[in-house]
Amino acid sequence: MESKIRVGILGATGMVGQRFVQLLENHPQFEVTALAASDQSIGKQFEEACSWRLVTPLPEAVRSLQVQAPQPPLDCDVIFSSLPSSIAGDIETSFAVAGYPVISNSSSHRMDSHVPLLIPEVNPEQLGMIGRQRQRFDCSGGFIVANPNCVVIVMAMALAPLHRQFTVKSIVATTLQSISGAGYPGVASMDITDNVLPFIAQEEEKIENETRKILGQCNSESVEYAQFGVSAQCHRVNVQDGHLVALRVGFEQKPSISEVKHSLASFCGEPQRLGLFSAPKHPLIVREESDRPQPRLDRDAGKGMSITVGRIQKDKVLDFRLVALGHNTIRGAAGAALLNAELLLARGYFDKQNVLDSPEAKRRPA
Amino acid sequence: MESKIRVGILGATGMVGQRFVQLLENHPQFEVTALAASDQSIGKQFEEACSWRLVTPLPEAVRSLQVQAPQPPLDCDVIFSSLPSSIAGDIETSFAVAGYPVISNSSSHRMDSHVPLLIPEVNPEQLGMIGRQRQRFDCSGGFIVANPNCVVIVMAMALAPLHRQFTVKSIVATTLQSISGAGYPGVASMDITDNVLPFIAQEEEKIENETRKILGQCNSESVEYAQFGVSAQCHRVNVQDGHLVALRVGFEQKPSISEVKHSLASFCGEPQRLGLFSAPKHPLIVREESDRPQPRLDRDAGKGMSITVGRIQKDKVLDFRLVALGHNTIRGAAGAALLNAELLLARGYFDKQNVLDSPEAKRRPA
Amino acid sequence: MESKIRVGILGATGMVGQRFVQLLENHPQFEVTALAASDQSIGKQFEEACSWRLVTPLPEAVRSLQVQAPQPPLDCDVIFSSLPSSIAGDIETSFAVAGYPVISNSSSHRMDSHVPLLIPEVNPEQLGMIGRQRQRFDCSGGFIVANPNCVVIVMAMALAPLHRQFTVKSIVATTLQSISGAGYPGVASMDITDNVLPFIAQEEEKIENETRKILGQCNSESVEYAQFGVSAQCHRVNVQDGHLVALRVGFEQKPSISEVKHSLASFCGEPQRLGLFSAPKHPLIVREESDRPQPRLDRDAGKGMSITVGRIQKDKVLDFRLVALGHNTIRGAAGAALLNAELLLARGYFDKQNVLDSPEAKRRPA
Amino acid sequence: MESKIRVGILGATGMVGQRFVQLLENHPQFEVTALAASDQSIGKQFEEACSWRLVTPLPEAVRSLQVQAPQPPLDCDVIFSSLPSSIAGDIETSFAVAGYPVISNSSSHRMDSHVPLLIPEVNPEQLGMIGRQRQRFDCSGGFIVANPNCVVIVMAMALAPLHRQFTVKSIVATTLQSISGAGYPGVASMDITDNVLPFIAQEEEKIENETRKILGQCNSESVEYAQFGVSAQCHRVNVQDGHLVALRVGFEQKPSISEVKHSLASFCGEPQRLGLFSAPKHPLIVREESDRPQPRLDRDAGKGMSITVGRIQKDKVLDFRLVALGHNTIRGAAGAALLNAELLLARGYFDKQNVLDSPEAKRRPA
Repeated sequence: MESKIRVGILGATGMVGQRFVQLLENHPQFEVTALAASDQSIGKQFEEACSWRLVTPLPEAVRSLQVQAPQPPLDCDVIFSSLPSSIAGDIETSFAVAGYPVISNSSSHRMDSHVPLLIPEVNPEQLGMIGRQRQRFDCSGGFIVANPNCVVIVMAMALAPLHRQFTVKSIVATTLQSISGAGYPGVASMDITDNVLPFIAQEEEKIENETRKILGQCNSESVEYAQFGVSAQCHRVNVQDGHLVALRVGFEQKPSISEVKHSLASFCGEPQRLGLFSAPKHPLIVREESDRPQPRLDRDAGKGMSITVGRIQKDKVLDFRLVALGHNTIRGAAGAALLNAELLLARGYFDKQNVLDSPEAKRRPA
Repeated sequence: MESKIRVGILGATGMVGQRFVQLLENHPQFEVTALAASDQSIGKQFEEACSWRLVTPLPEAVRSLQVQAPQPPLDCDVIFSSLPSSIAGDIETSFAVAGYPVISNSSSHRMDSHVPLLIPEVNPEQLGMIGRQRQRFDCSGGFIVANPNCVVIVMAMALAPLHRQFTVKSIVATTLQSISGAGYPGVASMDITDNVLPFIAQEEEKIENETRKILGQCNSESVEYAQFGVSAQCHRVNVQDGHLVALRVGFEQKPSISEVKHSLASFCGEPQRLGLFSAPKHPLIVREESDRPQPRLDRDAGKGMSITVGRIQKDKVLDFRLVALGHNTIRGAAGAALLNAELLLARGYFDKQNVLDSPEAKRRPA
Repeated sequence: MESKIRVGILGATGMVGQRFVQLLENHPQFEVTALAASDQSIGKQFEEACSWRLVTPLPEAVRSLQVQAPQPPLDCDVIFSSLPSSIAGDIETSFAVAGYPVISNSSSHRMDSHVPLLIPEVNPEQLGMIGRQRQRFDCSGGFIVANPNCVVIVMAMALAPLHRQFTVKSIVATTLQSISGAGYPGVASMDITDNVLPFIAQEEEKIENETRKILGQCNSESVEYAQFGVSAQCHRVNVQDGHLVALRVGFEQKPSISEVKHSLASFCGEPQRLGLFSAPKHPLIVREESDRPQPRLDRDAGKGMSITVGRIQKDKVLDFRLVALGHNTIRGAAGAALLNAELLLARGYFDKQNVLDSPEAKRRPA
Repeated sequence: MESKIRVGILGATGMVGQRFVQLLENHPQFEVTALAASDQSIGKQFEEACSWRLVTPLPEAVRSLQVQAPQPPLDCDVIFSSLPSSIAGDIETSFAVAGYPVISNSSSHRMDSHVPLLIPEVNPEQLGMIGRQRQRFDCSGGFIVANPNCVVIVMAMALAPLHRQFTVKSIVATTLQSISGAGYPGVASMDITDNVLPFIAQEEEKIENETRKILGQCNSESVEYAQFGVSAQCHRVNVQDGHLVALRVGFEQKPSISEVKHSLASFCGEPQRLGLFSAPKHPLIVREESDRPQPRLDRDAGKGMSITVGRIQKDKVLDFRLVALGHNTIRGAAGAALLNAELLLARGYFDKQNVLDSPEAKRRPA
């Protein structure tokens, strides 16, 4: 018990922060010891500061933790950040400089050339980029690892095995995204009841950029972006949780439908091989019914960590089409960051010496 | 007043039937004189037979009309049909054989080679196909004109001016369709509350086929389908009325954004030129705001007869992307059929002799 | 045309402010000449300052009006106020002191002993209270007239004829209120999708207090509150517009069901007798169907100005029960204030001399 | 394992039938061995026959069970019935006559004078009524036990401790009920999106009658109905699961607020004392927050078996008001029936000899 990694959460009162708190309750390897949030929460007990929106009760262990300012030092071994991107950049850097590993869900550092944009099943090799952070963060041993945008995770999971086997040439993604993706209070009910919003700020750009980094070629410490084109159109729909992505994909090779289905259904990665605590048994679930996936019925598959794929068909413009769905605040945010942390722990990255002595770090000029 | 065209409505108790009744109240050229529906309604007064779901009151004039069986003869000059496609085919034919012009909203005859698939702004030249119906219907003077599927109308309206000017090469359409499109009772609330359904039976096929007929080349009496590929993915969302279509389009020519916008905003057709009663002043409305069109705010534009287009951008996979929206039970169904009828009336097609003597009809061997 | 009363709207960018703008477009007696709102809007054109949420387009005439600070003087003859209650009190008073008639939708002055809490069909005699405002506002000729809380208007309309005829002894009101009642952005979509909120701040208190003032006995310049008890439980439900109130009522007299229905259906007041522009033909509509009123189907009755009543039954605890429904931002807010203004105009209250010379005003010591 | 009670489910493909199947998966005392449903399902494997609507997967053990006709004999020890009330009456009786204990969720026998209307925490003494069933069912050892209507369970749980301590004089109940209460497909989405339905067929009558039986005085084999008046107004709202009841209550005694809260919070019954498998630790949960209970946040409390109560206040017409909420298809239906079965098992009622030899049974003339 004494050996648990102590976690500090930045942005703890927000929707993703609350999911961090929820998912870390009873975690065998991590425990929450510090909570930080914005000015109006500082100094309050978490229970008071946080308008808890989740269905499970606020965990006892954090109720009376006092909310602190989001700046080092915090009494913890590792930082989970779900700060708004407007302020996340500098604050996350300051924690890395101060020697903390920072597991970030914000968008600030995702496209930095030294920051892994990590999905453990998809591109664990991007951890090699951590070496490039050595100098930048004054050999403090601190570093930043980012998880992608919520909808990008859903897409990239579904596309990863197909890209490996058949080489993706182009992606057309149309999203139907849930309201929890906008945080709380987020979307006004007057805007979304009996309605659809055909716009989510900067989302289309994130999808078009991040997907190419995630599925890029990682050579030791740097990543070469994938060369396919990505087109994204994003919509907000009146669903609590669960982002659905309608995808068309063009490939270099021309697989059959059964090859595509087999590629998806047999997908498996590092988290499954290592038996990480938050790893779903099936990272991708292929449904054969004509009317699946559906947000309400499929978002909680694999405790919210599985991506469900369905409606796989030949397409008349690109090669294939399919629909993918995942839980945006679990697999798309807090659960994604937690799985990243579990992989880092399994690989020894929370042992500071390991980071500084890693082959990648050493290879760089001191 | 005595000169109004007398309308009989088939499927009068359904959602589209109700819209027919609503739109024909106070119409200067048409009046409802016969209502037909399925077995359980026959013999009842319309008021009893119909579970009226519209916000405006059930028009006085039809309350006590007795519902009849959907078979000729009916006391009317023209038939508006919104029968379910499972039974529409034979019934509509029997009315045409009996000499009635049939304005059909059902899918049964849409792809028939002798049936115009008409959107008055887009392809009034398809009326020439009526000539081919002469023999088929025993020179009765009866004929069938169909309007397209609801979502196809939205798309085809937005694509028609672009196809004329820049020649469409490929279309990728992803739809977010409202629940009224499934009729009443239609979609179960348990299926759609807090949810999205990624499947609408036969919708993707209809979109892929009908679009190519509508935008095809019409030479005298026959139509050569457009050669572009169409890819459709359809979703049901929790919206009362209004189908939204996210479109990517590839062109032969390469227009600029401003050329695309100008093409759309200046679109105008036969209904506008003829001043047809149900014609919207602007068949296409181009919105510049980043978050439009929205179903709740834009479906009623032009009294539900305008299509609203927005989010026009260059695309990274095809050439352009944009979002189009229209009212599915007005412009996409009852209003579409009514506008067809108004065009037929203006062109003299409700005068039987004109149909039989038309150049198209004469050209065919007797 | 030159004789139109010039209206200044305070809180013009909010939901009720927008309804004022909408309802005043094409009004034969009023025209909007001044718009005022909070700091971040001041100096902007209304078009930019306002996030227009209504389905009809933003009226041309106000698009380029510059938003001003909500303080006198404004270039107008009368003030319509929909300021938030936190600031409305002092600002409305300052306009009255400056000589403006203030038609207020805010709650600040509703319970003031000198302010009529007016529903024109119900208690036009409360206009007599304006006399008491003479001294208070320095004989400026300015005064304040308030309309009640949105849900109170729905209830009070339905109860007024019953109270007159049968004397209400007790009222148990349970509300299902729409999201537009909370303004924009108001209720977070995450809070109301697939949910009900059993709490609306201060609403139960307002219902319990205002109802007794509205239905009180007005003797010349003062009102004696009605003596019945009122119990209110308020809920927010996922409906765009339309407040529904489930009512039980106890009476002194014991009417039959048909007497209750007749009392409601034949209700008619000053606005109907005077033919005021916004007066609905039927202030109360009694529906006999077992499943009416419904917000979506009945809120727009009488252009949003009629109250629809249904499910009238004998009750097992109090005497009767029934369900009443009205449009909360029209009859419950902007339309209510406008009808108040129309009554004031018809009675000559916008002629300053009339106010100062009125019998009520004269009776008070100078 | 061999000692598990074998359960046959009537109406297995419906919403409550599915909940039975879900709740019985991995139950330590019961296992599903027979499934019966209506004509169109008979002969099919359950997997095919059932349109599974729940979020958890269809349990392996029942996937390939063949659906049978709902008539004895079935290969099971006890019957769980969720048949529609239109057919439940005779079928349930035929199973009782054939010697099966019938745990019924249908309304057919609820008001029968020999059928316990059982809520284990509230009135376990009604089991004594089973003795009266001896002759009626030919001493077969079979019998019927009913659970109340879903919304009545929520109310009766909240009122039971208050009635015991302070004697209820009158109840005014206004409900906001979820769509799953109407079964599947049930409520049409067009009826409930952006809407409220102020009518649920026969619901108000059930509430007014069943509540008085449940909280009646049970003397050996018969029950004397409680004498309080009950007024119910029922509404359907757009919520998936969870019935909310706004209650006003009049008492003989006049408790303080803290006495009321203490009475509710300390409520505990037979299921808790016996440690029944499905018994929630806290049958009533009292929340102090001003905005609870809420369906989405509170329906799953105690795995859907706890009732959450909040907004406890003095009332201006009756004595107190409060809001109660429970999960309608778990505590209000399938879970209620299962808890009934667990109590019957613990009391030995599934041992036929016990039923026939029970003191109640013996007391009756043979």
